[in-house]
Amino acid sequence: MMLNMSIWLGITLMLLCCTSWGSASTTSRYMRRLEEGVDLPENSTYFKIPKGYNAPQQVHIHQGDFEGKAVIISWITPDEAGDSKVLYGKAPGSKYTTSVTGEANTYSFYTYKSGYIHKAVISGLEFRTRYYYTLGTGDAAREFTFVTPPESKLDTPYAFGVIGDLGQTMDSVSTLQHYMKSFGQAVLYVGDLSYADAYPFDNNVRWDTWGRLVERSTAYQPWIWTAGNHELDYLPEVGETIPFQPYIHRYHVPFEASGSTSPLWYSIKRGPATIIVLSSYSAYGKYTPQYQWFLQTLEAVDRSVTPWLIILVHSPWYNSNSYHYYEGETMRVIFEPFVVKYKVDIVFSGHVHAYERTYPVSNVEYNIVNGLCTPKNDNSAPVYVVIGDGGNVEGLAGTFTDPQPAYSAFREASFGHGLLEIQNHTHAYFTWHRNQDGERVAADSAMFLNKYWT
Amino acid sequence: MMLNMSIWLGITLMLLCCTSWGSASTTSRYMRRLEEGVDLPENSTYFKIPKGYNAPQQVHIHQGDFEGKAVIISWITPDEAGDSKVLYGKAPGSKYTTSVTGEANTYSFYTYKSGYIHKAVISGLEFRTRYYYTLGTGDAAREFTFVTPPESKLDTPYAFGVIGDLGQTMDSVSTLQHYMKSFGQAVLYVGDLSYADAYPFDNNVRWDTWGRLVERSTAYQPWIWTAGNHELDYLPEVGETIPFQPYIHRYHVPFEASGSTSPLWYSIKRGPATIIVLSSYSAYGKYTPQYQWFLQTLEAVDRSVTPWLIILVHSPWYNSNSYHYYEGETMRVIFEPFVVKYKVDIVFSGHVHAYERTYPVSNVEYNIVNGLCTPKNDNSAPVYVVIGDGGNVEGLAGTFTDPQPAYSAFREASFGHGLLEIQNHTHAYFTWHRNQDGERVAADSAMFLNKYWT
Ligand SMILES: [Fe+2]
Ligand SMILES: [Fe+2]
Repeated sequence: MMLNMSIWLGITLMLLCCTSWGSASTTSRYMRRLEEGVDLPENSTYFKIPKGYNAPQQVHIHQGDFEGKAVIISWITPDEAGDSKVLYGKAPGSKYTTSVTGEANTYSFYTYKSGYIHKAVISGLEFRTRYYYTLGTGDAAREFTFVTPPESKLDTPYAFGVIGDLGQTMDSVSTLQHYMKSFGQAVLYVGDLSYADAYPFDNNVRWDTWGRLVERSTAYQPWIWTAGNHELDYLPEVGETIPFQPYIHRYHVPFEASGSTSPLWYSIKRGPATIIVLSSYSAYGKYTPQYQWFLQTLEAVDRSVTPWLIILVHSPWYNSNSYHYYEGETMRVIFEPFVVKYKVDIVFSGHVHAYERTYPVSNVEYNIVNGLCTPKNDNSAPVYVVIGDGGNVEGLAGTFTDPQPAYSAFREASFGHGLLEIQNHTHAYFTWHRNQDGERVAADSAMFLNKYWT
Repeated sequence: MMLNMSIWLGITLMLLCCTSWGSASTTSRYMRRLEEGVDLPENSTYFKIPKGYNAPQQVHIHQGDFEGKAVIISWITPDEAGDSKVLYGKAPGSKYTTSVTGEANTYSFYTYKSGYIHKAVISGLEFRTRYYYTLGTGDAAREFTFVTPPESKLDTPYAFGVIGDLGQTMDSVSTLQHYMKSFGQAVLYVGDLSYADAYPFDNNVRWDTWGRLVERSTAYQPWIWTAGNHELDYLPEVGETIPFQPYIHRYHVPFEASGSTSPLWYSIKRGPATIIVLSSYSAYGKYTPQYQWFLQTLEAVDRSVTPWLIILVHSPWYNSNSYHYYEGETMRVIFEPFVVKYKVDIVFSGHVHAYERTYPVSNVEYNIVNGLCTPKNDNSAPVYVVIGDGGNVEGLAGTFTDPQPAYSAFREASFGHGLLEIQNHTHAYFTWHRNQDGERVAADSAMFLNKYWT
């Protein structure tokens, strides 16, 4: 409570390593308006269609292999398939040295028919290198650029943005613009992308507008995707009975490279971190594909190569907001013991439209009859960060549980984004930035000490 | 503990309504050998191939609609597809009045190629009526018979057998033979069928031998199937990455009739009961298809038509055996509040190779920070029966947790089956029969009082 004033004043306070369990649980008094947001209209300039016939749009890239030496480039052409050719090289303009040709697919959803969704994989790239690439031809040609990650080894600085539940309102634009002023090199995206399902029959046109909105970042750096409930697009009343179809067709991830059999769960190494992406809305019971894969993946992590071990999962396992309270419990009870055993550093989640950071916490002693079900301060356990505050049409989740649980270090219902600045194999500095402040201001911050190395 | 002697002596003891929480928790001292079972050899007479060219084999029936006026008939022809014709009528022999023609499919699994799996649906049947049906022609023709269920209404006696984790050992045969001497009219099958996955590359020939083994019952009365972990048949190392394929191709259930979009969860009314079948190994998080369907299905039950509400799910939510302890917790925490709210009478599970019956129990007060996580006696809550003791190759689960939890009424590690005799809208008498005893002997018994009506 003593911290409220400093946070209110927007002063960054560094909580070293967050081990001071219960000594300072802060519910920020900073209070944003809680009314629902309004989506930008379809003809918003933020969704501008690029010039030229059949011009590539909704461009987004993703790491294309497990190591970071490949990139998946994906885009949509609206009028015809055209070819799926990417020209690329280390210099911009017409000085391309290489090209690769991928393939295009379409899907339909109820009455909607998608454009031609292209996917091309560039591989054999050098680490920590800037590349340029061009899609389309003639006056519809568009050039973009990205930087490959550094090779994974013990002390490799790297900065990840953290965004969730973005949607397509003016708040979404604000979050995006704030993030793009930061020095984030890739985004850990914790699920719920377009909120197209807020429209009648999940009007997939809103998947397209969202793709054009976020292109300003996603064409230039990978957003590491996690599937949220708004990706389910499950509408049996109109015959759409297979979940995740729009999402899976549009957002390609290199799941096979990590031994996964589904794009809904996968892992990559990127610089100093192994990122494990889980699916809250797929099967995770013992023996299931996701369960088996998760254990094998945790077992295989070499912390001397990727000292930081990070999980992305949409539905939080620790959340003290009244909104979606307890929903993640079904996954927590089965996966938390492994997360503690393998010393996962941070679990990032979205879903709840607010921000919350916990102390390192675990609740793994319960055996049904012993009554040991109170979360405990546990330095082997991860810190949980809920950051579903991208700014979507559903508005903020402004009602926190009272009193604030001892495991909850800081919580506030404002739109914003996070930045995880991994400094070396022992220290990573995390900041949370609300949209009302300038990008340099951190409304919450903490130095995370590596669970394996410290 | 005072009960041990009577159980040891094999005397039936009726525990009226099981509300005497904690007053009598019994771990039966009756102890079966615990060594692993041995599967019958492929050429066992129990797997005998019926005579005649391309003769129908592995015949099994299932209720074919939500109400009980249709039957799915399924069988396999090994040599060629032939036609998928079923002749049927109320009299046996050549006096058939009607025929229906279904269709045949095949599937492959790694190097295995299935026979022609036929499915035909007979509909418009009368309630509580004996029908005869013939499959195949000439000297390969085979005749079977079944009785349709009574129309669902308040006081409709009906007897369900309860079997789980059967496998194909001599113990499986014993369970089957014991059950077939009972007056059970349909089987509630709680998952884990053939254990074909005990063989290299899930040798699907063992799905065929199992189909021939159980035909002696499944051709004559429906077994209401539940998928268990041994139905997953997930073998990514040989390219089999879509779970449940052999099971789904072979065992047809009328899932669409209850608004489900997957054969892994469905519901039927049968006589005085609504049976809801859940899948422990599919997604059940909030918003998922199974979750949404489960809530809609519970909401729609009319207890004045089907007074008894029964759930089948493979992995138990309450189990005090060391084997698979706590595995069902991930589903319990999300579904138990609904089960209590809608006054489900009984939850039958398998998975654990032993028998256990609880008192009515719930554990739904926990909110993470309040410490209220001790299971309580709750007469609004179901009784949980674990009955994965069909007799498969993995042997018995002989190690119970100590001390026996207060919620556990009776537990014993022996092979056997159950019988649920619904008498009227208030009383159902449940007995458990171990294979060592004659069928008339009940090693455990309890009178269940209906949760909604009493
Ligand atoms: Fe969400
Ligand atoms: Fe099982």
